[in-house]
Amino acid sequence: MRILHHHPLYGASRTARLLLAERGLVFLPKMEMPWERNEDFLTLNPSGEVPVLVTEDGTVLAGTTVIAEYFEETEPEDSRLIWGGAGERAEIRRLTNWFETKFVREVGAPLLNERYIKRVAAAGNPSSEVMRAAMTNLHIHLDYIDWLAEQGNWLAGKAMSLADLSAAAHLSVTDYFGDVDWSRHPEAKEWYAKIKSRPSFRDLLADVVAGLAPAAQYGDLDF
Amino acid sequence: MRILHHHPLYGASRTARLLLAERGLVFLPKMEMPWERNEDFLTLNPSGEVPVLVTEDGTVLAGTTVIAEYFEETEPEDSRLIWGGAGERAEIRRLTNWFETKFVREVGAPLLNERYIKRVAAAGNPSSEVMRAAMTNLHIHLDYIDWLAEQGNWLAGKAMSLADLSAAAHLSVTDYFGDVDWSRHPEAKEWYAKIKSRPSFRDLLADVVAGLAPAAQYGDLDF
Repeated sequence: MRILHHHPLYGASRTARLLLAERGLVFLPKMEMPWERNEDFLTLNPSGEVPVLVTEDGTVLAGTTVIAEYFEETEPEDSRLIWGGAGERAEIRRLTNWFETKFVREVGAPLLNERYIKRVAAAGNPSSEVMRAAMTNLHIHLDYIDWLAEQGNWLAGKAMSLADLSAAAHLSVTDYFGDVDWSRHPEAKEWYAKIKSRPSFRDLLADVVAGLAPAAQYGDLDF
Repeated sequence: MRILHHHPLYGASRTARLLLAERGLVFLPKMEMPWERNEDFLTLNPSGEVPVLVTEDGTVLAGTTVIAEYFEETEPEDSRLIWGGAGERAEIRRLTNWFETKFVREVGAPLLNERYIKRVAAAGNPSSEVMRAAMTNLHIHLDYIDWLAEQGNWLAGKAMSLADLSAAAHLSVTDYFGDVDWSRHPEAKEWYAKIKSRPSFRDLLADVVAGLAPAAQYGDLDF
């Protein structure tokens, strides 16, 4: 059985869970606490980051895009999440990197650290300055999603792609915290409602992290 | 003619220059100052980051891995920089992401900001605390390269790959600043000497940035 090392509040882990679910690939989830820098996990992935997928033949796939590209290459052609010609594929990868790197740096990582890790690791009080900056950045990213969602049905164009899964995965963590003001971003909200109602999303909406209950609208499909 | 929007001291730009040179793909370089957030450049790439390659048919490729994957798909099979079976390709991508993301976050971006951007943007004095932390991280990354280089001829195994180009590109910026103590990292030094002497590297070694001359050993193949 495939094993996915993950943490429910790390957006990149959620991207991996979504792409596996969209592909109908079952896995055994194993929860990691990346901030603890556990030796066994560092042996598996020296960067100490989640997600890591260990395939049935023992191949170690570290990182969301590594996992995604692996299944693009080994699963049937008709299940592509990075679809189209070389130019369309470049756009899907650009947007995926946007959420996996830029969104994480500007929004995801600071909010996760202030709202959750500082508490569980007993690492001091949240910084309101850091949170304010992250919330400002969140609106800029949501403006961009508004704009992208207006151009086509999905973020990278006519069909759902890895870019949608990545954006929704990372946003869903901020939504768990209750940090998204959807009323200010109608196009992003419509797009998120569509992806939130997919069967692949159900598992994420059932997440409850010990000591930090999700915000009221988190699991609600009619938010 | 292809146009590469780049900056000589941004490691990711250097990865793109190396991979284009290794593939024998000519391009017209156009220098950008990403910290200036120039409107025209933001229209091309809303993230404001270099590199961006505009192909001869006008396709916009934003980001090193996007550029790399595009040419893996459109250039002949025998020129692969992401080679091998699905597992080997996953390892090349993992290491490439390591340098493009983790190294940049922990070493490249803070050193670039303190040593160069703060000066040209007149944004205050360098922080010795930030630089010290980045230098400590640099040694940890070089230890990892020592270890990888000991395992095989190249970082991801038996042949040169995108991972080597990425690692060397980012390290070459810190070497431009004179920040690498090669004597403490003999295996990394041997690997870097090998890649530094490749024809694809010549263009990088000729870089001179206005107002900041390279360190003495920067262009020396026998450093």
